[in-house]
Amino acid sequence: MRRLLSNCGILSDGDTEYRYIKKGYLAIDGDTITYIGESKPDGEFDQIKDMTGKLLIPGLVNTHTHSPMCLLRGIGSDLPLQNWLFDKVFPIEDRMTKEDILAGSQLAILEMLACGTTSFSDMYMEPEMTVGAVSKAGMKANICRPVQEFDGDERPQDNYRVKESLELFDKLNGADNDRIRVDFCIHAEYTCTEAVARYYGQLCREHGGNMHIHLSETQKEHQECIEKYGKTPAKWFADAGVFESRTMAAHCVWVTRDDMELLKEKGVSVIHNPTSNMKLGSGFAHVQEMMDMGILLGLGTDGAASNNNLNMFEEMHLASILHNGYTGDPTIMRPADVFRMATLNGAKIQGRVNTGKLQVGMRADIAAINLDAPHLYPALDVLALICYSAQGSDVCMTMVDGQILYENGEYFTIDREQVMAEAKAAVKRLYGI
Amino acid sequence: MRRLLSNCGILSDGDTEYRYIKKGYLAIDGDTITYIGESKPDGEFDQIKDMTGKLLIPGLVNTHTHSPMCLLRGIGSDLPLQNWLFDKVFPIEDRMTKEDILAGSQLAILEMLACGTTSFSDMYMEPEMTVGAVSKAGMKANICRPVQEFDGDERPQDNYRVKESLELFDKLNGADNDRIRVDFCIHAEYTCTEAVARYYGQLCREHGGNMHIHLSETQKEHQECIEKYGKTPAKWFADAGVFESRTMAAHCVWVTRDDMELLKEKGVSVIHNPTSNMKLGSGFAHVQEMMDMGILLGLGTDGAASNNNLNMFEEMHLASILHNGYTGDPTIMRPADVFRMATLNGAKIQGRVNTGKLQVGMRADIAAINLDAPHLYPALDVLALICYSAQGSDVCMTMVDGQILYENGEYFTIDREQVMAEAKAAVKRLYGI
Repeated sequence: MRRLLSNCGILSDGDTEYRYIKKGYLAIDGDTITYIGESKPDGEFDQIKDMTGKLLIPGLVNTHTHSPMCLLRGIGSDLPLQNWLFDKVFPIEDRMTKEDILAGSQLAILEMLACGTTSFSDMYMEPEMTVGAVSKAGMKANICRPVQEFDGDERPQDNYRVKESLELFDKLNGADNDRIRVDFCIHAEYTCTEAVARYYGQLCREHGGNMHIHLSETQKEHQECIEKYGKTPAKWFADAGVFESRTMAAHCVWVTRDDMELLKEKGVSVIHNPTSNMKLGSGFAHVQEMMDMGILLGLGTDGAASNNNLNMFEEMHLASILHNGYTGDPTIMRPADVFRMATLNGAKIQGRVNTGKLQVGMRADIAAINLDAPHLYPALDVLALICYSAQGSDVCMTMVDGQILYENGEYFTIDREQVMAEAKAAVKRLYGI
Repeated sequence: MRRLLSNCGILSDGDTEYRYIKKGYLAIDGDTITYIGESKPDGEFDQIKDMTGKLLIPGLVNTHTHSPMCLLRGIGSDLPLQNWLFDKVFPIEDRMTKEDILAGSQLAILEMLACGTTSFSDMYMEPEMTVGAVSKAGMKANICRPVQEFDGDERPQDNYRVKESLELFDKLNGADNDRIRVDFCIHAEYTCTEAVARYYGQLCREHGGNMHIHLSETQKEHQECIEKYGKTPAKWFADAGVFESRTMAAHCVWVTRDDMELLKEKGVSVIHNPTSNMKLGSGFAHVQEMMDMGILLGLGTDGAASNNNLNMFEEMHLASILHNGYTGDPTIMRPADVFRMATLNGAKIQGRVNTGKLQVGMRADIAAINLDAPHLYPALDVLALICYSAQGSDVCMTMVDGQILYENGEYFTIDREQVMAEAKAAVKRLYGI
């Protein structure tokens, strides 16, 4: 199918600078962008779609979340972290069935598509359920089976999570025209043993996989690692050989300058989760410093239990302003840099080289923002508008690989009412309400 | 007119605890709430409005903004504060005509009504233009003519701004069935002289007025006052007698513990502007500490030039999470407290005793949130849902004094297209684009 999006604003390129076309045309052939410009391109189109008053941006990439946790939205708000986790989150998670995880993933996808997210990196149990939901929706995702090991006596090769992770990789990596990718995952230093990290890290390297980890999210985790091993979590992962694979490390709130140097040297990318880090009282990740060092930075929502939504516009907003707040410097974390974190960097972190920016030859992963809103006027600076003024709900269309998945409240690959009904059934099972 | 809102969630009371009715009825007679309950009330109604799936909350009160500045949305983002102000903001403001200020106020009102704000406290030039826009819209606002004095030689009684402020008060305070209130205003310590502050503060007292000020927003302002006068801005205002009137002090980022004690003693209320304080790099106001001391706290967006919108949901969101971030304590700034800041406290700060909460006998200032959205499910905790999960756009209806001003994108007292056209004309005048 050849489709032309016409008369719209287009925010293209972005490797170094973004190029803003105030009124232009974007052509798509199948899943690929074939033209971007100010004048109407020649050729025949199956559909010419008038997008007057809309701004096309690359689809947003949420590089760290736990999608099924939207079923835990709002539980135990404002409890101390340990009580929240042990008294609220874990007991519910223990009760979650495959059916619940599917219901939660579907609900998450409804929410993500409605606010312009085209791809996400997920870390949760029963990942095949999430893959199924993503596949049906036509979205993109990097999914993993998180590996943990609490028993130091077990042989690494007997860890059932490692086996499941490999099976998932062999079965589904690259599925759906590469929309589905399977990552490797060590949940965190404090939930794993050195032996398993080393063994599984080696497997990741052999398979050419991406490794997704939690790193120095809380001061407690960071300090306890130093007390236990005499080194930071970053050093612990590096010494276990994990960083010899391409690794994305979520949070990194408490990493030291030496840790940052190590991440930079090993090419580890860092996922910033500002809402979650603030809400849980974890602190502020020093992302401008890491960006200045040349570390590749992405942006994530974390799970909805600690956010409490999956809205990348809120993350862009927070990433743009919060670092000004504690440094006292309003010039840092520029909108262009933050927007790049949420798009092109995210795609790179996911290992997707053919998306993340609007450019000829790239996949048509696009969100359209409706600029005809009082809070988006005047549009003097579109990048500032996206990062400071827009809401997730300003997205009026979300497209993945050239296919419109969401437009003006309507979903084209998902039965919204059925998904909501299944979410309600899951909530009833989990909470009895 | 007697109206019944039926089958809706209702978040009522709130003086100490909020009461959540999952499915109930709220009746309105003219401008006043006459019934709230779980069963349908007796009596005849001119309109029974089915609100299934909606949650009624008290309208939001934005206690510190500069509404016409939405015409400056996005200019000079990420410049250092002084360059932003002197090179960008002030030159534009110098060019602003009464017509521009009207256009900006109208645009701001469109935005505010669409996200559930029913009342705001405004500080800007040519306040009669803003009053006109508020009056036409049927909204509530506390408006002031900010007093400044840069010339120490002038007699206080010759300050033309003082005269304009008094004229505005005499002419318009209490207009429109008390929807319009006129406040007194000293812009800030650093833009006024002691003599004018003393003289005008005395006038405010004599008139029984409310005083709206900026206080210790930036470290620079706070330190320079100490260097110049040997005392903090709070002490400077107190010594000039200004705090003998009911005063609302915006920002208070750099107030000391002694300042807080003084504010508490004098009954000064504090307006928290988290987005603006972060975006401009001003810092974090210690609002939990002030709340614990018993200081009355409100919430504001500040102007759209430093925000860059007028969305009170974002302010509630930030106020709920950012203080967790820098204190490391996720238990502070509970949703109920933050929501009260944005509603009941705001009404009290504006001197409005008959609004700010849903209760029989109170004015029907109501916002309805559409809960039928993936990102608002499950609704396990509605206060957490409002503060952490909701977007401003989840508001589907805004009512002031029993009159529906906004519903599902439609405005009933404002010609949206005309307001947008007038905003465009103003932008053309100001920027030549």
